[in-house]
Amino acid sequence: MSDTEFSVSHRDQHCQARRGRLVTPHGAVETPAFMPVGTCGSVKGVTPAQLGETGAQIMLANTYHLQLRPGADVVAELGGLHRFIGWDGPILTDSGGYQVFSLGQINSIDDDGVVFKSHIDGATLRLDPERATQIQNTLGADIIMAFDQCPPLPCDRETLVAAVERTVRWAARCKEAHRREDQLLFGIVQGGVDHEQRRGCAGRLIDIGFDGYAVGGLSVGESHDEMIDTLEQVVPILPAGQPRYLMGVGMPRDLYASVRAGIDMFDCVLPTRNGRNACVFTPGGLLKMRNEVHRLCDDPLQAGCPCYACGRFSRGYIRHLFMAGEMLGPTLASIHNLTFYQRLMSRMRELIPNGELATIPREFPIVTLGSEHNSA
Amino acid sequence: MSDTEFSVSHRDQHCQARRGRLVTPHGAVETPAFMPVGTCGSVKGVTPAQLGETGAQIMLANTYHLQLRPGADVVAELGGLHRFIGWDGPILTDSGGYQVFSLGQINSIDDDGVVFKSHIDGATLRLDPERATQIQNTLGADIIMAFDQCPPLPCDRETLVAAVERTVRWAARCKEAHRREDQLLFGIVQGGVDHEQRRGCAGRLIDIGFDGYAVGGLSVGESHDEMIDTLEQVVPILPAGQPRYLMGVGMPRDLYASVRAGIDMFDCVLPTRNGRNACVFTPGGLLKMRNEVHRLCDDPLQAGCPCYACGRFSRGYIRHLFMAGEMLGPTLASIHNLTFYQRLMSRMRELIPNGELATIPREFPIVTLGSEHNSA
Repeated sequence: MSDTEFSVSHRDQHCQARRGRLVTPHGAVETPAFMPVGTCGSVKGVTPAQLGETGAQIMLANTYHLQLRPGADVVAELGGLHRFIGWDGPILTDSGGYQVFSLGQINSIDDDGVVFKSHIDGATLRLDPERATQIQNTLGADIIMAFDQCPPLPCDRETLVAAVERTVRWAARCKEAHRREDQLLFGIVQGGVDHEQRRGCAGRLIDIGFDGYAVGGLSVGESHDEMIDTLEQVVPILPAGQPRYLMGVGMPRDLYASVRAGIDMFDCVLPTRNGRNACVFTPGGLLKMRNEVHRLCDDPLQAGCPCYACGRFSRGYIRHLFMAGEMLGPTLASIHNLTFYQRLMSRMRELIPNGELATIPREFPIVTLGSEHNSA
Repeated sequence: MSDTEFSVSHRDQHCQARRGRLVTPHGAVETPAFMPVGTCGSVKGVTPAQLGETGAQIMLANTYHLQLRPGADVVAELGGLHRFIGWDGPILTDSGGYQVFSLGQINSIDDDGVVFKSHIDGATLRLDPERATQIQNTLGADIIMAFDQCPPLPCDRETLVAAVERTVRWAARCKEAHRREDQLLFGIVQGGVDHEQRRGCAGRLIDIGFDGYAVGGLSVGESHDEMIDTLEQVVPILPAGQPRYLMGVGMPRDLYASVRAGIDMFDCVLPTRNGRNACVFTPGGLLKMRNEVHRLCDDPLQAGCPCYACGRFSRGYIRHLFMAGEMLGPTLASIHNLTFYQRLMSRMRELIPNGELATIPREFPIVTLGSEHNSA
C-alpha cells in the first residue's frame, strides 16, 4: 500500500483517537468508520440505496457465507462482488476464519488448514490460508483479511498460544498467496486477553508487513473492560500510519472506548440484528418497540434524526408494524439504527480535531451504558 | 360527489374501456388504476417511498385488519390513516365484509350484522353497516366501501339471493351512517355469476346512489371467462360518469379483459405476494427466481424496466437472495412486480385514447396466459 492510501489528518491530544481517511479503488472512507455487515451480500432489511442514505461509506461481506452460497466463482461470473450486490462503494471481506470456528462443524484442524461441514447443507469443505485468500481475490473486495484462528474466550494458555502461532504462520501464507494489488490485505492480531500474547502476535505480523492491522478475537465473551485493556496494550504497537480495525464490535460504549484507544474501523451486526428484533438505538438508550408505552406515541424514534424512519413515521406506527409482523418494521428500525451508528461515528470524527471527544457521553449517554441496559 | 371528482376523458371505440381521472383530497388518480394492497397499513416489503417510485397513485388498506390491530381509535389518535402509514397519496379502505367472511370465525350473522372471532387472538367482535362505516370515517381514507356480504362461489341460489338482499339493505344503512363529506363512499355489487342477480343488485344500489360502484364477489373461485361474462352484464348498467372498481383482481389477463369491459380501478395482493414467493412478472410470463436457470444470469428481471431492482441487480443476485433467505429478495421482487403492474396500467391508459388497446397482447403476451402458466 502506498503512503497515500491511508492518512491520519488529526490526533486527539487527550487520548489515542485519530481522524483519518482510507482511499480504496471504490472510494474513500472517513475514519473512525463503522462498517455495516452484509453477511450473504446484503445488509439485512435495507437496499444498497437505503444503506448509502444512512451515511455508510463502506460495508463488510462474509467470505465464509458467500463461498458456501452462491460461491466465489458465481460472484466473479456475475461481475465481482460490487456489481453482484449492487454496492458501488468500498467493501471489506473477512477471511472466513471466525465463521469456520463459530458456525461450521470442524472435522479436522491442523497447521495446513481446516476441514469443516457447511452449516447450510453439511457438505465437507476445506479452508486454508491460500484458499481463503484466493476466494477473496476472486470476490474482489477492496480490503481482504488474513485467514486466522480465533480461539473462544476464556481458553487455556496452551490453546491461546497455539492459535496465535498458527495465526501468524497463516498470515504469512496469506500474504504470499495474495495476487491482487488493487486489494489491501490486513493481518489479524489474536491472543485473547493475554497482553503478552497480543503484543507478540502484533509484533510478528508487523514484521511480515500488512496494509492494515485488525484486532480479532475480542467481543467473544470477555468483559468490556478486558477488551479495552487489551486494546490499550496492542494499539500502541501498531504502525501509526496504517489503519486499525477492531473486528465484530460493537455496542456504542465499545465504539467510543475503542476510538479513544486508537481504533479506526469497526464492523458489527448489532444495528441490523437489533433492528429486526424491534430494538432501537437512541442517544439516551435502547427502545423496545413492542413495548405498550409506544402505542399512542406520535414522536419519531429519535427527535432530530434525519433518517427516513424518523422523518416520516411515529413510534406508534413502528410498534404496530412489529406487532403485526410487517417487514417494514425491521426495515425502518434497521435504517434508523444504521443511521444512528453512522451519526455517532461522524460526531466522533468531528470532535477529534478539537480534542473534544470527551463530550460524546453528554451527547450520547448510551455510550456510558452497558449492553445489559435497556430502556423502554 | 360533485361531477368534477371523476371525469372520463377518453372512451375506446372498440370496447368499453375508458380513460379517466379521479380527484381525491390527497391527489388525483389516473384511471384505469391499480391499487397495491397494504393490508395492515403497509404494502408488504416496500416503504411508502419505494411504493411511490413504482408509479402507484393510490393504495388500499384493510379495515378488518386495522380495526383488529391497532384499532381505528389508535390510528385516529396518531393523526389518521395517511399520517399513520406515511403515505400522502389517496387511500381506499375496504369495509371488512370480505375479511369477516373469509378470515373470521363467524359466531352469528343476521340482518343486523356479523359477530365473529378475531383471527389474531380469538376475541369476539361485531361488525355491521354502521360500525364498518364509522370505523372507516375514523380511519380517514379518501374512498370508503359499503359493508357487504360476499358469498363463496359456487353457492346455491338461495344463499346468493339472500346475500344480495342483505348487501343492498346494508349499503343503504352505510350511506345513512356515513359522516364525512371528504370521503367518497362506494357501493358493492354482489350476485356471484348470476347475471340477473348482478343486474338487480346494481340497479338497486344505483337507486340508493353512491359515489362509485364496485363489483365484489368475483375472483373467488369462478373461471376467468365467468368473471368477464359477469362484468359484461353489470358494467353497462353502472352510471357512465362514476368510477367502477373490480375488487381483489387480479392477474394481468384479468386486468386487461376487465379494462376492456369498462372497469376503472383494481386492487390485488398478487404483485407483492408473488414477489415474496420469488415469482416475478414480465411481459412474456412469470419467472420463478429460485430456478437454477437464473444462477449465472447477469440480466435484469426485465430488460428496459425502469425499476430499482432492474436498474441495479442481476437475476443471478436476486436468485441468490431468495436461496439465502435475505429480505432483500422479496423487497426487490415486490418493487419490480408493483412497477410491472403500474406500467401495464399506464400503457393501457396510453392506448385507450387512440383505440389501440388491442395491441396490449403483443406488448404483454402475459395477458394471454392463464394463471396456471409459469415459465422459468
